[in-house]
Amino acid sequence: MAILITGVAGFIGSNLASILIGKGKHVFGIDNFSRGSLNNLDSVRTSSNFTFEKVDLTNNEELLKIIGSFHAHEKISEVWHLAANSDIPAGVEDPKIDLKDTFMSTFGILGAMRAFDIPIILFASSSAVYGDHGDVPLVENLGPLLPVSNYGAMKLASEAAISAAAESFLDRAYIFRFPNVVGVPATHGVMLDFVRKLKITPKELHVLGDGTQQKGYLHVEELIDAMLLIQKKSKDKVSVFNVGADDEGISVRDIAEETVRVASPGAAIKYGEGNKGWVGDVPRFTYCVDKLRSIGWEPKLGSAEAIKRALAQIVIQETRS
Amino acid sequence: MAILITGVAGFIGSNLASILIGKGKHVFGIDNFSRGSLNNLDSVRTSSNFTFEKVDLTNNEELLKIIGSFHAHEKISEVWHLAANSDIPAGVEDPKIDLKDTFMSTFGILGAMRAFDIPIILFASSSAVYGDHGDVPLVENLGPLLPVSNYGAMKLASEAAISAAAESFLDRAYIFRFPNVVGVPATHGVMLDFVRKLKITPKELHVLGDGTQQKGYLHVEELIDAMLLIQKKSKDKVSVFNVGADDEGISVRDIAEETVRVASPGAAIKYGEGNKGWVGDVPRFTYCVDKLRSIGWEPKLGSAEAIKRALAQIVIQETRS
Repeated sequence: MAILITGVAGFIGSNLASILIGKGKHVFGIDNFSRGSLNNLDSVRTSSNFTFEKVDLTNNEELLKIIGSFHAHEKISEVWHLAANSDIPAGVEDPKIDLKDTFMSTFGILGAMRAFDIPIILFASSSAVYGDHGDVPLVENLGPLLPVSNYGAMKLASEAAISAAAESFLDRAYIFRFPNVVGVPATHGVMLDFVRKLKITPKELHVLGDGTQQKGYLHVEELIDAMLLIQKKSKDKVSVFNVGADDEGISVRDIAEETVRVASPGAAIKYGEGNKGWVGDVPRFTYCVDKLRSIGWEPKLGSAEAIKRALAQIVIQETRS
Repeated sequence: MAILITGVAGFIGSNLASILIGKGKHVFGIDNFSRGSLNNLDSVRTSSNFTFEKVDLTNNEELLKIIGSFHAHEKISEVWHLAANSDIPAGVEDPKIDLKDTFMSTFGILGAMRAFDIPIILFASSSAVYGDHGDVPLVENLGPLLPVSNYGAMKLASEAAISAAAESFLDRAYIFRFPNVVGVPATHGVMLDFVRKLKITPKELHVLGDGTQQKGYLHVEELIDAMLLIQKKSKDKVSVFNVGADDEGISVRDIAEETVRVASPGAAIKYGEGNKGWVGDVPRFTYCVDKLRSIGWEPKLGSAEAIKRALAQIVIQETRS
């Protein structure tokens, strides 16, 4: 039995592949390399428990051929569907990007799961499905869901399609809603952005917005632990869980200062205006992970520690590249 | 200034066109006739305040041409987006139907609204976005939204895309979630189904399921009144309102008995098993319209009266056809 990971060459996919292989699982990974890269798979590529195919989830014919041919030799027991556009501003500019890479990719994999009777999907959704609820804590049973980015909209559309598929042909569906996740291989995000800016202009760092924007951050290793725990513990047909740091989060200002301290001590930080970085960005929110705690989860790192750890890893990554 | 109605040749679209024209508005209606029909437009076709074009909302190039050419002569002030697949079981069988007609149609009209700066959308969503919550009353702030049909899933996906569009370029968005709406021209639904079955076999009526399935029903004329009231009263950037009968609803058994009484007295009613009519059908739910009541709405008909009135209209419709 093998586990299929879509978006395996991305940030979370590559970490998940590595952890599952470490647990003795056989991983069949696919990616279209729209955001992911082969380099991210360095730690798993040589493993005999890893198989990789390049395919676009929206290319229905090729997808069915590739999955069918693998499935004929070894049954696929579950799909971790992580493939998505991860560039939120790009998707606001052009809604077709999230339509294809964030939603039609889900539609495509569900079609393949139906065709080959693969019974379980685990889906990387996002806190972006909630939209901007001001000071109301974001809990799983909150509505209405009014995403402010096309990314959030197409994640919600994916949740919806998965929910209908669960009624129709799946045994189980797990929907993980997470906010910012940090770690390496970093492919996007505020820290990578800052580190790269400082490489070009080591004496100053320009920050989008006024730096007061505050969010919780989870380290990718903790995220994967939490998802595996949910898969083990939750008995619902469709499980929806927030997965995130269990604290108030830290501000962009704190991250900028920490990045300067580690990557380019003494650099001047220049802030912009407003507390939204871009259209579709939610300035501040309180993320409730009580449901996750109720099944026994204990976070090891707070947002600040997750940022520190990831930042150290990102600085090494960027020094090597 | 004109009002654009998508799906104008459908059940709700044709009623809305007629009411808006009655109020002196100029209506520009479009439809692809996938479900709607020209006959439904008999009452408005001859009006000088009505313009019609046949176009498919997923044919991007043609849509932009047709809307652009109208818009160049007369500005479109708002879009009532009613176009959708209305055959829920067909969409469960083949998810591509709701993908195209229920979701990509929304994606298409939003693209045109962005291209021509049309600032307001009014969207016919559905109680199907909620999914099956057992005895929990369905209120607008309930989550998670776990639709059990592809129809519900693609309505939720449409809500999501509209919400992101409101953040990005729309002035206002109104999302109306309604359960079963009845009236004429009836194109689908349990009463039409029963009346047509009785036409073929006047002595017996076979009912899908055990008849205990209970739902609220709203007459289309009341639905349109309620939507216009929300448009007038709600000041939110994105308004989400349940619109439905304010009672416990009536059972399929009650509807079957009433249909037999009116259309074929004395016919025997034969029930099937289970209280779900088909995959993706929600057996029973309590629909909360407190938010709608809070802006001053008073329903004139309960579910039972709405059914009686619609049934009388449908029997006449089917006698003529």
